[in-house]
Amino acid sequence: MNYQAPVNELRFALHVHGKLDEVLALPASDGLDTDTVDAVLEEAARFAEQVLAPTNRTGDLNGAKLIGGKVESHPDLAGAYHEYCDAGWAGLRAPAEYDGQGLPAVVAAACEEMWCAANLAFSLLPMLTLGAIEAIFNHASDEQKQAYLPKMSQGVWSGTMNLTEPQAGTDLGQVAAKAVPKDNGAYAVSGQKVFITWGEQEITENIVHLVLARLPDAAPGVKGISLFIVPKYLVNADGSLGGRNAAHVVGLEHKLGIHASPTCVMQFEEAEGYLVGEAGKGLAYMFTMMNHARLGVGIEGHAVAERAYQNALAYAKERVQSRELGSENHAPATIIHHPDVRRMLLVQKATLAAQRALYMQAAAAIDKAHGLEDPLARKQAAQTLDYLIPIVKAWCTDNGVVLTNLAIQVYGGMGYVEETGVAQYMRDVRITPIYEGTNGVQALDLIGRKTAANGGAVPLAMLEAGKTVAAQLAQSQPALADALQQAIILAERSVADIVAQMSGQPALAAAASNAYLQQMGCTLGAIAEARAYLAAADALAGKAQAPLGEAFYQAQQHTAKVYFAYVLPQVNTFAEQVHHGGEALLAMPLDAY
Amino acid sequence: MNYQAPVNELRFALHVHGKLDEVLALPASDGLDTDTVDAVLEEAARFAEQVLAPTNRTGDLNGAKLIGGKVESHPDLAGAYHEYCDAGWAGLRAPAEYDGQGLPAVVAAACEEMWCAANLAFSLLPMLTLGAIEAIFNHASDEQKQAYLPKMSQGVWSGTMNLTEPQAGTDLGQVAAKAVPKDNGAYAVSGQKVFITWGEQEITENIVHLVLARLPDAAPGVKGISLFIVPKYLVNADGSLGGRNAAHVVGLEHKLGIHASPTCVMQFEEAEGYLVGEAGKGLAYMFTMMNHARLGVGIEGHAVAERAYQNALAYAKERVQSRELGSENHAPATIIHHPDVRRMLLVQKATLAAQRALYMQAAAAIDKAHGLEDPLARKQAAQTLDYLIPIVKAWCTDNGVVLTNLAIQVYGGMGYVEETGVAQYMRDVRITPIYEGTNGVQALDLIGRKTAANGGAVPLAMLEAGKTVAAQLAQSQPALADALQQAIILAERSVADIVAQMSGQPALAAAASNAYLQQMGCTLGAIAEARAYLAAADALAGKAQAPLGEAFYQAQQHTAKVYFAYVLPQVNTFAEQVHHGGEALLAMPLDAY
Repeated sequence: MNYQAPVNELRFALHVHGKLDEVLALPASDGLDTDTVDAVLEEAARFAEQVLAPTNRTGDLNGAKLIGGKVESHPDLAGAYHEYCDAGWAGLRAPAEYDGQGLPAVVAAACEEMWCAANLAFSLLPMLTLGAIEAIFNHASDEQKQAYLPKMSQGVWSGTMNLTEPQAGTDLGQVAAKAVPKDNGAYAVSGQKVFITWGEQEITENIVHLVLARLPDAAPGVKGISLFIVPKYLVNADGSLGGRNAAHVVGLEHKLGIHASPTCVMQFEEAEGYLVGEAGKGLAYMFTMMNHARLGVGIEGHAVAERAYQNALAYAKERVQSRELGSENHAPATIIHHPDVRRMLLVQKATLAAQRALYMQAAAAIDKAHGLEDPLARKQAAQTLDYLIPIVKAWCTDNGVVLTNLAIQVYGGMGYVEETGVAQYMRDVRITPIYEGTNGVQALDLIGRKTAANGGAVPLAMLEAGKTVAAQLAQSQPALADALQQAIILAERSVADIVAQMSGQPALAAAASNAYLQQMGCTLGAIAEARAYLAAADALAGKAQAPLGEAFYQAQQHTAKVYFAYVLPQVNTFAEQVHHGGEALLAMPLDAY
Repeated sequence: MNYQAPVNELRFALHVHGKLDEVLALPASDGLDTDTVDAVLEEAARFAEQVLAPTNRTGDLNGAKLIGGKVESHPDLAGAYHEYCDAGWAGLRAPAEYDGQGLPAVVAAACEEMWCAANLAFSLLPMLTLGAIEAIFNHASDEQKQAYLPKMSQGVWSGTMNLTEPQAGTDLGQVAAKAVPKDNGAYAVSGQKVFITWGEQEITENIVHLVLARLPDAAPGVKGISLFIVPKYLVNADGSLGGRNAAHVVGLEHKLGIHASPTCVMQFEEAEGYLVGEAGKGLAYMFTMMNHARLGVGIEGHAVAERAYQNALAYAKERVQSRELGSENHAPATIIHHPDVRRMLLVQKATLAAQRALYMQAAAAIDKAHGLEDPLARKQAAQTLDYLIPIVKAWCTDNGVVLTNLAIQVYGGMGYVEETGVAQYMRDVRITPIYEGTNGVQALDLIGRKTAANGGAVPLAMLEAGKTVAAQLAQSQPALADALQQAIILAERSVADIVAQMSGQPALAAAASNAYLQQMGCTLGAIAEARAYLAAADALAGKAQAPLGEAFYQAQQHTAKVYFAYVLPQVNTFAEQVHHGGEALLAMPLDAY
């Protein structure tokens, strides 16, 4: 159950897809250079492999428990967390002016892949804290920032997101928690929140809950929701901790996976809370941090599958069973010699490469949307980002289930017993298509605000860029280039289909939304793999730096070809489903189900 | 977590795909009539719903435990088992001359869907006993049959399959267990067997282990393996139980699912065993029961997904969240009104219909291959059966994971908590692509003995029959008929691809084997759905009996259309993978993984 952080793959993806050179040239990168980035990656790899990864199964076997109103975690997790903070990882992408490192999103994303692969349940604690930091940094008062951010950036305090209520999941407009003004300028927050990840724990000194609630006179629906800071322990003016606030865990969910992370039912009973920003803007504030949060979940789905792949690969190289088909050698072979086992492994490897490419593109777009100086270029980066986010979130997490499932299959019977640990990956990753907006919600976002709202211009521009890549590829790999061209044509048709359906009969587009999202993920993944092939060709031909060695670049080219052979052909299915799937679906009356 | 046995779906599938009228006309059916079959289904449905289904979660939460050398099961499981035997279900398809009911395979298959859906872990106990009965009936001496079969058919004794050893999983030629002749004509059997389902329990009075082992002078490999009966308690000449045999459980696996069924490590230490049939034919004897066993696992994968679908459907009709897209109604709607939720439900429903059709076709082929009087017709039925078996086994079980995964997704966050029970279905069904020959082994079987060995004649004949169905469909549904024709043409190309690859470079065919199997499952499923559409049309037009009511037949037609819209388009992907997937895969060196 070892984990080897794929540092070379990450470096390659950072340069080719994350455009690290361009990101480092941004003023916000503040003189950061490639050598430093490499050193960060090496050190993060060491930490992920040696400190975090060994806690993964321990945490699964010794899940969080609620005992006497307190959440108990296995001591190894607390120990790993404190090491993590001591090493300065907690504030990696937190603002430098509040004790964070302020590293670019692309570098942070590479590190997050390693944290999530090493221990997904653990990684949620610092990731949620970073989300809370982002919300406070962008919307809270200077005083609030000063009070909370430094401790959070150091990881001494954690942050949580208290949005969901039993009747308000996808539909946050139904939030019912109340916030009543108190004499001291604060608010008394009351209500129940569910599915609160790391909502309570004894690992950090304090927990800063961000809570959505309604003021007494609030409008109904989305516009009446405000955002509050509700600390577990009140914070005195001098920064020391005061009394225990009335924000308590009252139950933990028994989940399929991520056992180490307590998923809490939180009860707020006139807990003291502080309004963030303006009243009524709570949901809007949450949405400003949605891109980073959804990118993070996409990385989670990807990362767990990477680790599962590594384990399946190791098993396939070790397990001896049956002789190789068509071989002269009649002795039993390691199972990696069986083509169908290779198929399972290579579908994992090729999909992982494309996923890493897409999440790096999205992270680079975050950096550019914030950091470019030209407003038009910033806007374009923001559009690219907005389009990629639902794809990275949903494609990488749906794939997460598919790929971990393949990893189990490589193990055969040993995959079904928990001792080998591979089953945990599927149990853990299964949450990722659900939380932070179900993948169905991502698909609706993609067809609506991200496609139809711009008449398809944003995706069409990305496909147009893909044609340039295909033209370059045609010079060395005409068959691959042809396949890419065909896939782009199909994708253009699907964009047009969605735009037309949205203006005519939106339910048709909704019925096609999942297939459209999968098709675009698959197609953008192919464009990325074509770029990877070309970048590797340049490195091999001496036209570009080749720090990772000949074998590495050759492997990238093989991986790209496997992607085209086994993964890309799925677009033929998705395009058909987009083109005329919805009619049969909508025609079926509900009582015929 | 209720289960409603889909009796009408089963009756329809029995008639349209299982050709119940033809099966009942076989001499072996011995005057059984449709009314009796209907009564059996109704009674099985009642038993599955009321007695078995409530034990499913109990068994999951209270898994089998090894305590003091004994396997403890929750009392509810033992209770349900005794009721099951008292009601006569144990010997449903066991030979009538040994206290079985001798019902046709199609009827037994319908019942097995209900047992597996109601409680998969439980169902394995009687299913394995039926497999052992089949092996003993076909290969043991009259004396042995008399000694074991009546008690087994009544369920008073169970049967197990002891094949796998740590080094001998897929590759049973590596079996190392020994059998040394004793003075009394019996053998002393020694060795360790792993993954033995229900290998030990206290529910039945005795356990009849079927064990593969080698005689001292046995040839190496497959030809040196013999089959032995090794009872847990020796059986006296008068049928009473004698001493405890040296066949003991020494460990239980901790599994992802099917917690109620003990998966045992069995240690045989000079246990008394009795040779079945001739020495050296052990594996051949096992293969004669392989078809029924693999059909059974295919039904398992299907059945668990059926129950998951029912639960997801009920949740989608009840859970209120967000308003309907494009609707004038701004009130929150039940989530079944959201097209993407419908998509997830209908992909489940349509795939389930096609799966049920295919397993019924296979079961009917078992009945005909045994029961037809014309040798040529028997041979054709056997060929159809042999071709369908790996498809039913692998397609229905791979789909089992995909469909239960969709069911979880319909539940959103509630799908990830174990209390709703839907996660158990995915955990349980995950074993089915692995055991009884991994799905990779099924795919190799399909390309080799089932396709290339007959030059593709068997699948091409089945596709030819599909063209006739497409021609009939063209009169009322030209678009569907056209899609079916196109799919058949693609399938014919894939058959030709596989035959050519197998004769040229078998590794290429092996690399394509999974895609070929999926493609054929999907295509034969479409032919079956076309038949279902036409049969429903006849019922609606008064050209055939219509006992299930107008709404039922209309629903069948809608379901067929959904299958064509969302499931069938996958063949475009699979055909591409078959056609030129293998080259990129085989070109990638192992150290580039």
